[in-house]
Amino acid sequence: MQPIRLGLVGYGKIAQDQHVPAINANPAFTLVSVATQGKPCPGVENFQSLGELLENGPPVDAIAFCTPPQGRFALVQQALAAGKHVLVEKPPCATLGKAALWIKREQASAPCSPCIAYAPAIAAARDWLATRTLQSVQIDWKEDVRKWHPGQAWIWQPGLGVFDPGINALSIVTHLLPLPLFVESAELRVPSNCQSPIAASIKMSDPRLLDVRAEFDFDHGHDELWSIQIRCAEGTLRLDNGGALLSIDGVRQTVAEEGEYAAVYRHFQQLIGDKTSDVDVQPLRLVADSFFVGSRVSVEAFYD
Amino acid sequence: MQPIRLGLVGYGKIAQDQHVPAINANPAFTLVSVATQGKPCPGVENFQSLGELLENGPPVDAIAFCTPPQGRFALVQQALAAGKHVLVEKPPCATLGKAALWIKREQASAPCSPCIAYAPAIAAARDWLATRTLQSVQIDWKEDVRKWHPGQAWIWQPGLGVFDPGINALSIVTHLLPLPLFVESAELRVPSNCQSPIAASIKMSDPRLLDVRAEFDFDHGHDELWSIQIRCAEGTLRLDNGGALLSIDGVRQTVAEEGEYAAVYRHFQQLIGDKTSDVDVQPLRLVADSFFVGSRVSVEAFYD
Repeated sequence: MQPIRLGLVGYGKIAQDQHVPAINANPAFTLVSVATQGKPCPGVENFQSLGELLENGPPVDAIAFCTPPQGRFALVQQALAAGKHVLVEKPPCATLGKAALWIKREQASAPCSPCIAYAPAIAAARDWLATRTLQSVQIDWKEDVRKWHPGQAWIWQPGLGVFDPGINALSIVTHLLPLPLFVESAELRVPSNCQSPIAASIKMSDPRLLDVRAEFDFDHGHDELWSIQIRCAEGTLRLDNGGALLSIDGVRQTVAEEGEYAAVYRHFQQLIGDKTSDVDVQPLRLVADSFFVGSRVSVEAFYD
Repeated sequence: MQPIRLGLVGYGKIAQDQHVPAINANPAFTLVSVATQGKPCPGVENFQSLGELLENGPPVDAIAFCTPPQGRFALVQQALAAGKHVLVEKPPCATLGKAALWIKREQASAPCSPCIAYAPAIAAARDWLATRTLQSVQIDWKEDVRKWHPGQAWIWQPGLGVFDPGINALSIVTHLLPLPLFVESAELRVPSNCQSPIAASIKMSDPRLLDVRAEFDFDHGHDELWSIQIRCAEGTLRLDNGGALLSIDGVRQTVAEEGEYAAVYRHFQQLIGDKTSDVDVQPLRLVADSFFVGSRVSVEAFYD
């Protein structure tokens, strides 16, 4: 079988750190072109825009979008209109209204996949939880924005801030839990010189009144903490390192090693093969609802 | 046919001004009980809570909810669990996540209807627009909050403000337009002593790039302005007085006279008869997305 010919749009930090290594490590894909306005990607044809890539570049079957979410919708629409399969970094786009349009598309034509974590530890966690009685969920997603998003002004535009990493945690949790979550209340702590929160506390629940709490912090000085702890009547499950490590009652479980983005591209390959689509709006809906009902507290100004 | 026996929860301003007169004017309904913590409703049995109304009151077939949206979800769930038909004031509840749960319910069991305007002028406007080429939409929804929401502290809690009346306009516009809208950008003007906007400007669009703009103002000193103007290649349609009056190219059109809430209860009656449900989340999604992507500007403190 011929590999899937892939074009990539937006050759920034996440593309360089995660997407290109994951693509190069997966023989099902071959990266043939990149559209970027920054430094070019070595070893492939580079273009200034998606339009040029589609018009003048070598043929592609699929496009991976690694640009910031705010301007992504029109680009994705352009790729879908050109009949390309589409992989979209999370959050899939800037608003729920736009994401809703993608859900209603004919599914066979163009799979869109947000980057939900399909890593082996997540799958093992889901299996373990399936037969347990859930009691509570605690998410702690804390990192230093200066380290992980150095100089990325777009993250401080309205609508993201600490929810940019936080949506990863929400994607994992909504994937693990059997019932949909909704926001009960939220507190957003917004630097006095920014539009977006640098930290947030969110209280969520589900139709069975499960207690789900999240603490997001973008100004976490020491080591990153990306953990999800799920208490059940039968024991406590814990994911660490952003979902890479799984423990049950403090005992580390052995799971196959596969990076998050390796899992994402494996999932994308499967969606293309199955001619299906996977647009999960639930994490984005939780983010939008947090902004909608959240109270805002002004905190110290932030300087990168 | 026996009239539909109705209980009403929350006997505040909107219930007194609109719901009870509309119910009393419609022979398909009979108001038998009210749950309220304020002054009792004359002529019916009054209770302190929905639970008491359901447990100790005369039998009811349906419940109309006129309480503020923030605490409404659990009450509506309680009524649905008791097998009652449910009519919910807009917005249907405080978050999209909660509203999404209602959409997924078995439809036959309990219709939920938000208060979208089904008034004759709206229906006539929709008919006229169906064969026209849309060019742009301008919404102006401006009123004095001190006149229309005197002393209503809940409206200044996170998540509402000027969007409480504004969602009426969004309900009408999404009902009139053929394609779903999404938010492009928003500016929320928030009094320095409040959490919610007193005014907002929203730029929306649809998959055909229709230009839709809304101006919401809650501090509009003189006469209310509740108008929607839709420019088409073939002429301009205008709704005034919140959708009660219809003009085409400046010429007032004759439409049957029916109040907004008379139309709402007529619609509710039909949903019950058809054993169907109508939960339109699009207006609430536009509001949530406006909060999500909107930039905030701090304005002068507000005192009631």
